[in-house]
Formats: sequence, structure tokens, C-alpha cells
Amino acid sequence: MSRSTETAPRTVWIDPDDPTAVLAIEQRLLPFEYEEVSIRTADEMAAAIADMVVRGAGCIGVSAGYGMYLAALEARDLSGDDADDYLRRAGAVLEASRPTAVNLTWAVQRQLRELVGIDHGDERLAKARQVADAIADEDVAMCAAIGQHGLEVIREIHERTGRTVNIMTHCNAGWLAFVSHGTATAPMYAAFDAGIPIHVWVSETRPRNQGARLTAWELGQHGVPHTLIADNAAGHLMQHGQVDLIIVGSDRTTVNGDVANKIGTYMKAIAADDNGVPFYAALPSSTFDPTLRDGVANIPIEERDATEVTNATAWFEGHQIEPRVAAPGTEAVNFGFDVTPARLVTGIISERGISEASEESILALYPEFAASLPSPE
Amino acid sequence: MSRSTETAPRTVWIDPDDPTAVLAIEQRLLPFEYEEVSIRTADEMAAAIADMVVRGAGCIGVSAGYGMYLAALEARDLSGDDADDYLRRAGAVLEASRPTAVNLTWAVQRQLRELVGIDHGDERLAKARQVADAIADEDVAMCAAIGQHGLEVIREIHERTGRTVNIMTHCNAGWLAFVSHGTATAPMYAAFDAGIPIHVWVSETRPRNQGARLTAWELGQHGVPHTLIADNAAGHLMQHGQVDLIIVGSDRTTVNGDVANKIGTYMKAIAADDNGVPFYAALPSSTFDPTLRDGVANIPIEERDATEVTNATAWFEGHQIEPRVAAPGTEAVNFGFDVTPARLVTGIISERGISEASEESILALYPEFAASLPSPE
Repeated sequence: MSRSTETAPRTVWIDPDDPTAVLAIEQRLLPFEYEEVSIRTADEMAAAIADMVVRGAGCIGVSAGYGMYLAALEARDLSGDDADDYLRRAGAVLEASRPTAVNLTWAVQRQLRELVGIDHGDERLAKARQVADAIADEDVAMCAAIGQHGLEVIREIHERTGRTVNIMTHCNAGWLAFVSHGTATAPMYAAFDAGIPIHVWVSETRPRNQGARLTAWELGQHGVPHTLIADNAAGHLMQHGQVDLIIVGSDRTTVNGDVANKIGTYMKAIAADDNGVPFYAALPSSTFDPTLRDGVANIPIEERDATEVTNATAWFEGHQIEPRVAAPGTEAVNFGFDVTPARLVTGIISERGISEASEESILALYPEFAASLPSPE
Repeated sequence: MSRSTETAPRTVWIDPDDPTAVLAIEQRLLPFEYEEVSIRTADEMAAAIADMVVRGAGCIGVSAGYGMYLAALEARDLSGDDADDYLRRAGAVLEASRPTAVNLTWAVQRQLRELVGIDHGDERLAKARQVADAIADEDVAMCAAIGQHGLEVIREIHERTGRTVNIMTHCNAGWLAFVSHGTATAPMYAAFDAGIPIHVWVSETRPRNQGARLTAWELGQHGVPHTLIADNAAGHLMQHGQVDLIIVGSDRTTVNGDVANKIGTYMKAIAADDNGVPFYAALPSSTFDPTLRDGVANIPIEERDATEVTNATAWFEGHQIEPRVAAPGTEAVNFGFDVTPARLVTGIISERGISEASEESILALYPEFAASLPSPE
């Protein structure tokens, strides 16, 4: 089984021409402008994470790893407690940049475990670079593995039908949110690279339009055929046989297979169910929350600023603007996520393989979850 | 049973201060600006219809009726064949202004049947005004009757639950598309006017945002509590018990109760079905197409310009603009409507009453359809 090539470039990486700097894609300008920013200090990296220059669970974890590399550069001439204190302070600033992102803390703590106590600055710097690259490479390998498992689902459909496989996705669980490949998009890139003819229906994903802005852009960068639709059109396409499967990402998945993901995912899942379309969630196994059953009842749903609904992010006369699209004075509510019950989920694709959306099948692939299960209901 | 008061103003009416002019709400500026335009000739009315100053099935039929009133004003000094020819030419221009609108032809022909052959200009003008007002009043009465029938559904829910009734709608089947009341909105206005506490979830209805722009605006004008949501949030709200019923309009309804309506309606209907939420379509009986069964297979779906999906209509620095919201170069498809199968429709509300979405129930309320049925399948 051949590994698909990486989607390129990575979202964050050490500048090959100047290893005292880390380069990152300036994601706030996408898709209207492509720009790489040079980040030279750990504080600048913390600001880049806080300001969402880099965003997405995988991507910000890796960015924090490189942030600690920059801290090790700054601490190169320090030793002993001075060096350790410097690294710890830099790590605390990085961890505070997006308080709820678990990957961030995980990456910073992993670096600190390796770096604290190394007295020699150059040795410490070399280790920091090695750990940062390892975090990035592991993220890439994980997404690539998701891609290879998902590829087999796409290949089976293609071999059965003998025609282009139409895949629908929602939001952006793409390489921009990780380092390369992405999660929901990884099987698409793998199938495309394997020469299987595919076409992707990209839902715009109001209110923040991550589909229209990011997924459409990154599929285009890789040359994958795709078509943008209003979220409202998903059901019509499925009803008329235009969708062979759906692959979405997930922000949190319960041990029985309920999938929390971007608002609107649940409506796609019921439309898939109504039309016999397979519905998959692709996610790193770290997304599972084995302490929860019944995601609809137990996963809290973030309510975001209503202006995301009353306004749109758009591009006008060379500028990114956020003009109002709703009637003046109208109030809105803005739920960030919804929960798709396991009964609507055909399968869950992680780096370990594909499980059914049931506690039995999930525990078979992730036996370590048995220690964390909630008490039976 | 008291009739609910009209929503105000009407969408088109004779200027009470100057009966040589017809006033209409300039709907292209809504919801950002409210302006009434004065229309003084039949040709100006044809242009207003063509340019969508006035829009919506009921509203343009009534506008055409008033257009013929303006033609009768212009022909006041003519008699005999000269007068008849003038009216016929004016009617042809009005009919051509929106070629697919059946209401337009119907209103023009109704005026011509009454006016052709009246030799005296003042008598002809009085008749034209009488017919135009009758067309408008009949539209208002039809929408009011839909409101009264739908009111009973809302009242039953309120009496059973004892709390505010949460109603969800999609797109704009409101008074702006008719003369007053609207169809899907008529039961909401009737319930509100009857003192039943209601709250309306308004889906923005991408890509053209008729919900965010028009429905939100007109509910606000009447003082009806409402909240705007992204289309993607409809399922989440139903899943969490926040929706008591859905009422939408329809552009075409088959004799077995399949409902064609704005794209996205079908996804709301399956979410309603998944959560036990009643789903109603409210429509004038003229919307039925008794010659069709199986709307999913047989109702053609209009494909509209892709720029409606890649761009948004918005308000920025005092101007209405249509900025791009999708990645540069991304292509889109744009289906205007979808079909909700009868199995998902709880009931159909017309001016005659409420029927189930089945051929038997529909034929019981509309026995005249029996003559037009398609051959059995």
C-alpha cells in the first residue's frame, strides 16, 4: 500500500533558508491572498496562535511545538535554572494563547519534559528542533494513515460503480487545520493521488464559510475536482443520487459513536440516512472522549457571536470585509456545533482503522478506553 | 372566529392622495431601506415587475391588475377599437414582463375580459379600478383564510403546552410575496394578533437570504418575536426541543402531496421527521398541480446563477453590494428548489382548510382535481 504524497506546503515549518525563523501560512487571509509569515520568537508564535494566523487542532499543537523551538533559540546562551525558567515562562505564554486547545498544552509539556535540565544551549536547541519536527511528522503520519484507511472505502465504491466517486464534506477538516492531508480530506487526497476519479461537493458551511473559503481553496491547490454548494442543497443532491458518501471531521466523539462536529453536520447525516448514503467521520483517536455516552445530552455546544450569522466574511474591492446580510435590528443565535447520533454514522475512520459507531466496535479498536468508561446508564 | 387584521401596508395599492398613480414597496432595497415608489403608466408597471421592484407570485399578479388600471387611465380618451387595441397592447407588455408567472397572465386576461368593449373611458376606468382592487382583495382574503386555518394548529399546540409556540419557517412566503398576510407567515400573524405567544425561528435561506432579508424584516414590522439562524442550525434546534412546528410555503404541490419549495426545505422536513416536529406547507390552492404525482421525479428544479452561491448580497458603507464569499476560482452549482416527499409532510394548509399530504385527503378537499389526475402509476 503506497503512502499518498503530502499535500503541500505544510501549514507550519522551520524556514529552510533561515533556521532561526518558523514559517506559517497566514490563514486569516485565505482564500483571497496566500502569504507565508515569518515567526521569530516564542511570543510571536503565541500571538500568531491567539490571533488565529494558525488555526485548527493539529496545526496549533504543532505550532506550539515550534514555538518552544523558538524559545530554545532565545535561551541558547542560558543554562541551569535560568534556561529552565525561560522555557517554562515561554511555555506558559504559549499554553495561554488558546485556553481550550488540548493539543497546545500537550505539545508544550512534551517539549518541557525533553528540554528542562539540558544545560548546554546548542544541545537543547537541537533537541527542541527534533521534538518539534517529531510532533509535526507524527501529525502528518496520523493524517496519512486516516487517508489510507478512508481510501479503501472510496476504492470499494469506485470498483463497485466503475465511475467517479462523489464525496460530500462539511466545514474544513482539511490540511489547513493540521499540517498536511487533514482528516476528512485525507481519504480524498489519498484517492486522488491513487488515480481514483473523485469529485467533492463542498458545503459552504455558514455562518463562517470554512467550506467555501478553506476546503474549496485547499482542494483546488491539490487539483482535486470539487463544486461548491449552499448548505441547503445537500439533501437535494443526495435525493438525486449525486452523492456516494459523506466524510466529515469531528471535534469530539463519544465512546458509543456520537459525533460532535460543525453545526449542520447532523442535517447532512439525516439526509444521508434518508437516501442510503454512507456517512463517515474521520478523526484522530485523540478526538474520542471515552468518558461520555449520549453526546446529544452530554456534549456542551458553544454559542458564538451572533454577528457571524447577521454578517458575512467577504472580499470586496481588494479588502476582506464583514458586511451585514440580515435585516437591520434582527437578532440571531449562533450555535457552533451539533451532535450526530451514532445511529446515523456508518463508520469512524481514525489512524488505527475503521470502526462502527458502536461502543463494542470502538472498544475493540481502542481497548484502552475501557478504563475510562462512564458508569452504565 | 375573528379575522386577523391585515399586515400593513399592502405591497401595492392605488395612491389615496393621487389616484392617477399606483404605489408599491420597492422590494429590491429591503431590508436595508424602505421606500415606496410611484408608478404612473402600464409600461412603468411592466418594468417594475421585470426589474423585481415587486416580486412574489401573488404580488405580481395584483401588480399586473393595477398595471391594467394604469392602461385604462392612459386610454381614457380613446374609444372603440382604439381603446381595445391600446388595452391589449398594454396587457401583452405586462404579460411579457415575467414570462413564467401564471398569476400575471391570469390577472391581465381577467381585466381584458371585463374592459374590452366598454366604449366610455370613465366607465372603463372605474371598472378597471374595481377589478384591480378585487384581485388584490381576493389575494388578501385567501391569505387571511390560510392564516385562520393555520391559527388553529398553533392554538392547539399552545393550549396543550401552555407556553410560547416556537415556529420555524424557511425562505419568504410572507406578505411581501403577496399583498398582505402571506401564506406560511399568515398563521403566525393570525396567532400573534389573537394573543397567542409565538416566537419564529427564521432560517437565513442561503443563497439568496430571503429569510434573513425579507422574513426577518416583515416579522419585525409586525412586532412578531423572531430569531435568525444559519440554515445549518435548524436540526440542532429541533433535536433540543426548541421547535414546535414548521410552516413553509410551496411553489408547486403534487396531487399526492409532494411539496416543491425553496432549496433546503427538504432537509428541514427530514430533521422534523427525525424529531417528531409537525411539518406544514401553507399555499393557495392554485399552487397544486393535480396533473403530477411523484414530485421528486417529475418536478423540474431550476438551476440558477452560480454567483448567488459564490457571492452574498450584503450592505456595506451605505450601499448594497454582492461581494465574493468563496475561494477565488471555485465553481458552484445553485439549485433553486427541492422537493419534500409527502411522507414527510404533516399537513397542507390552503384557503379551503387543512388536508393530509395524501391523494385521498387532497381530493376530498379539492374534488375538481379528479378531472386532471395523471394516469395511475
